[in-house]
Amino acid sequence: MAYRTTAARQDRDLELRQRILDCALARVAEGGFAALTMQALAEDAGIATGSLYRHFRGKGELAAEVFARASQHEVDALAAVLRTPGRPDARLAAGLERFAARAWHSRRLAFALIAEPVDPEVDEQRLLYREAYAELFVELLEEGVRAGVFQLEQVALGAACLVGAIAEALVGPLSPPARAAREQGRSGPDLPEVSRTLVTFCLRAVGASLPAEEKQQ
Amino acid sequence: MAYRTTAARQDRDLELRQRILDCALARVAEGGFAALTMQALAEDAGIATGSLYRHFRGKGELAAEVFARASQHEVDALAAVLRTPGRPDARLAAGLERFAARAWHSRRLAFALIAEPVDPEVDEQRLLYREAYAELFVELLEEGVRAGVFQLEQVALGAACLVGAIAEALVGPLSPPARAAREQGRSGPDLPEVSRTLVTFCLRAVGASLPAEEKQQ
Repeated sequence: MAYRTTAARQDRDLELRQRILDCALARVAEGGFAALTMQALAEDAGIATGSLYRHFRGKGELAAEVFARASQHEVDALAAVLRTPGRPDARLAAGLERFAARAWHSRRLAFALIAEPVDPEVDEQRLLYREAYAELFVELLEEGVRAGVFQLEQVALGAACLVGAIAEALVGPLSPPARAAREQGRSGPDLPEVSRTLVTFCLRAVGASLPAEEKQQ
Repeated sequence: MAYRTTAARQDRDLELRQRILDCALARVAEGGFAALTMQALAEDAGIATGSLYRHFRGKGELAAEVFARASQHEVDALAAVLRTPGRPDARLAAGLERFAARAWHSRRLAFALIAEPVDPEVDEQRLLYREAYAELFVELLEEGVRAGVFQLEQVALGAACLVGAIAEALVGPLSPPARAAREQGRSGPDLPEVSRTLVTFCLRAVGASLPAEEKQQ
């Protein structure tokens, strides 16, 4: 009986933890990590701030976990596209388009994940997830080099360059100053332009002979 | 007389502030921002920790200023190369080689500036300096597009992609895990390989027709 009580309690704890994380993600998607305060989150989840601290030592730990879950979701989404059958160059293009579109449609979250200034615990996770993205690209680039579709000597370095280029292309047009400019009516590039520029940049960079290049002329 | 005393005191204050910042940069170059504690720094500068707080409110503010000074130095060094006379593609290649070499020869500092997890104040500066780098590339890319040397529709986006690719290429081989691997005898790419990969990646990406590509074959 004691055992069953403990198990039930563990279930409730896990369920509450999940609810806290869901509320936290909603906050970050709405207002970035800046909006993720322990007090506001406790209110969202309908619990006392003290209970919140029983689940997470502090904002840094909580932010890092929100970051890791949201990022894993993006990595999985990208992996699903990059690992479909087909030509490596077409899959790279499709993966970039998918990634850009997802970021574009959750801009506040994308900026928070990629570049919002935040606790060092999140920076630690950023480095780990950049490696996770890089590994996906290494896989694809190696396949493409073997198939003669990509021309690259240092596949791991090329993959790192791709990760950096993608993140920075999206931070620019997704950043708060760029959003402010758009809200004031000054126009930035739109999703199709960002997407096309990114695809052209990356395909050319890895030495693919482009259908995209012909399109661009 | 009162005025002269005040002026002399201001000079001494400025001099001490400069000495603190020099000591702080030396610490970061040696052990990253992790090695920059207020207590150790006060000892290096030969002052009481209390005096240190009279000049800087805390580690975040101090780290942000060390970051800004070191980064401005790198921006200036890159600008000097990118703004020399000559063909835009050759200047881009020379700028990338210079940047990679400087980072390679101060790896701990380069990793600290580009990616070490650290206070949000430094992350804020990172965003600003990425824009400063991007502006340098915008200038060069615009010139190259006008000259027909580069093929790019969205110059600002292309510049952002370059900034990201460069940072990520250098964080990889400069990161603590990569350094640990090298110390254990597993080899990573060396500077000429990193430099050549980066130049080829970036020149191809912006649509330059490469002498570098022929070299690579």
